[in-house]
Amino acid sequence: METTVEKNTKAIGTYAAEQPLAPLNIARRSLTTHDVEIDILYCGICHSDLHAARDEWGGTKYPIVPGHEIVGRVTRVGDHVTKFKIGEMAAVGCIVDSCRTCDPCKEGLEQFCEPGNTIVFGSKDKHTGGHTFGGFSENIVVDENYVLHIPETMDPATAAPLLCAGITVFSPLKHWKAGPGKKVGIIGIGGLGHLAIKIAKAMGAHVVVFTTSISKSEDAKRLGADEVVLSTDEHQMKQSPKMDMILDTVSANHNVNDYLKLLKVDGTLILVGLPADKLEVGAFNLAKGRKSFSGSNIGGIAETQETIDFCAKHNITAEIELIQPEQINEAFERLEKGDVHYRFVVDMASLKSV
Amino acid sequence: METTVEKNTKAIGTYAAEQPLAPLNIARRSLTTHDVEIDILYCGICHSDLHAARDEWGGTKYPIVPGHEIVGRVTRVGDHVTKFKIGEMAAVGCIVDSCRTCDPCKEGLEQFCEPGNTIVFGSKDKHTGGHTFGGFSENIVVDENYVLHIPETMDPATAAPLLCAGITVFSPLKHWKAGPGKKVGIIGIGGLGHLAIKIAKAMGAHVVVFTTSISKSEDAKRLGADEVVLSTDEHQMKQSPKMDMILDTVSANHNVNDYLKLLKVDGTLILVGLPADKLEVGAFNLAKGRKSFSGSNIGGIAETQETIDFCAKHNITAEIELIQPEQINEAFERLEKGDVHYRFVVDMASLKSV
Repeated sequence: METTVEKNTKAIGTYAAEQPLAPLNIARRSLTTHDVEIDILYCGICHSDLHAARDEWGGTKYPIVPGHEIVGRVTRVGDHVTKFKIGEMAAVGCIVDSCRTCDPCKEGLEQFCEPGNTIVFGSKDKHTGGHTFGGFSENIVVDENYVLHIPETMDPATAAPLLCAGITVFSPLKHWKAGPGKKVGIIGIGGLGHLAIKIAKAMGAHVVVFTTSISKSEDAKRLGADEVVLSTDEHQMKQSPKMDMILDTVSANHNVNDYLKLLKVDGTLILVGLPADKLEVGAFNLAKGRKSFSGSNIGGIAETQETIDFCAKHNITAEIELIQPEQINEAFERLEKGDVHYRFVVDMASLKSV
Repeated sequence: METTVEKNTKAIGTYAAEQPLAPLNIARRSLTTHDVEIDILYCGICHSDLHAARDEWGGTKYPIVPGHEIVGRVTRVGDHVTKFKIGEMAAVGCIVDSCRTCDPCKEGLEQFCEPGNTIVFGSKDKHTGGHTFGGFSENIVVDENYVLHIPETMDPATAAPLLCAGITVFSPLKHWKAGPGKKVGIIGIGGLGHLAIKIAKAMGAHVVVFTTSISKSEDAKRLGADEVVLSTDEHQMKQSPKMDMILDTVSANHNVNDYLKLLKVDGTLILVGLPADKLEVGAFNLAKGRKSFSGSNIGGIAETQETIDFCAKHNITAEIELIQPEQINEAFERLEKGDVHYRFVVDMASLKSV
């Protein structure tokens, strides 16, 4: 099915890995019967936007328009759309389409779609034949089945990071059963980690935060940590309580064996950061205690809605620094140094006047 | 509680890492009220006997008498022993005591006893104050709660390897739910692997064996494999069906990422071999498909009995090469080269006449 390209749209992106992001024009497809058009208000910045823009994982298609934590308002709907009305708040995350027929898709695990899902930017767009463009733009057109509802009570700017950072930590916390009576460790207090602390606490778990920076200790407690362990302090690590699960949000290379040792019998260390280098694991650290080293990657569409609803119910949103579109390059640089509390969100509405 | 040392016992062991094993004399403790004395008929040889004798993992206490796959007959029982009678077949594996009060012990996971369990050789013996001696000996004295029953219908020589190799593969196959409708991979066809094939098949799983040696293909099928994949053949690996779980019995260093890629969503690769070097794991190989890299280590006492009973019911025993005590050094050398089909078992009864 080819759809005519319809709408000229202002966006922020780049034509090459070594070029900074700058305004450019993209074309959004005309609405199919199941499509929703969203006027974008806010879009969060995730480390993977930076990785992709600079082609650090390889395979980036240029021009690229990053952005996958998108919140806005519905401006138009296709003829057969039943889930959204014009004027409603709506959101889009990483996944904008999938095969809908493979086992993972049928189980609501569209993130693991076997033939491969369509990611909000850089994936083949089966309607236009080109590739998809992300949320650093005025508007976006997405099949209603991949669009999320945002309760009107939520602040759209601080809700935006739930679309990637939020679901990325909510999904494994739920899957590995964080809750009352469970000790849950969180490694790192960044975009993912700060939401993980809030969500794990709201789930009823005893939350222990591991950080390399003593200055973040008070902040961790304010966010909901029951205990904070300075991971560079051998004595504190030895005294640490044993964990049922530890969520590892660190993207840089690090020694996971130190954390495997802190797990209880049958405990799991779950990687949600994606270090580029391979991680070394000692066999004894797994065998002794029947432990697992696992990974998790975003979450499915239904579970993303569940994340938003859970956070709305528990008054959880991200702590953000709101920036203007022209500050994205500077934000990328600060993000690279870990200098953000705790997520950049871009005021995309102002792009219209750029 | 100190118990007088009572019985002079012939054994095979060594006083130093670089010395071959040779006959020596050890003292067995006098029976406490809950102890069982077993006249040893057969003892299997496991790679960890070799590692320990040569101090390859560090911490070996000399003199060492290895051996932890022990089958024999009860010759004496303490006054309060209720579980065993004189003349019955009995067996002893790795664990001969534990604290009995920690959470893992209460859950039947004595292999993960928190204060530390007592291993059949090289552990502190709380009765004598010395250290324990294993099954390369005439007899052994063990608390009845850590002694296993062997059905009289079983051949004691081929049953011996169930005490370590058997439970080591049975426990994870059961824990990760091998059974009908499940695709279970087995990497390696050695002492552990050949029993894993038989047990997984008896559990009802579809068994896929991964081997580096095409010559073992027919043997794998004879043992029960539904499919055999030559792991050195890239094309065969690409064509391999996707697995619910893969049991990795390889002790040498190897690339686990190749196997993580063969897992279904939520699949688990379980290490039961214990490579000395750290293993490198790619973060994407875990995150993509919410996969786990896990470890398992022998099993608890009740589960060891379950292994024996399961194998008796399904006519499963090890395929062995029966050797004499004076051949142990030669067997160690062959074991090191992987030259055994598939487990050495020592005829310990003949030690009496050495």
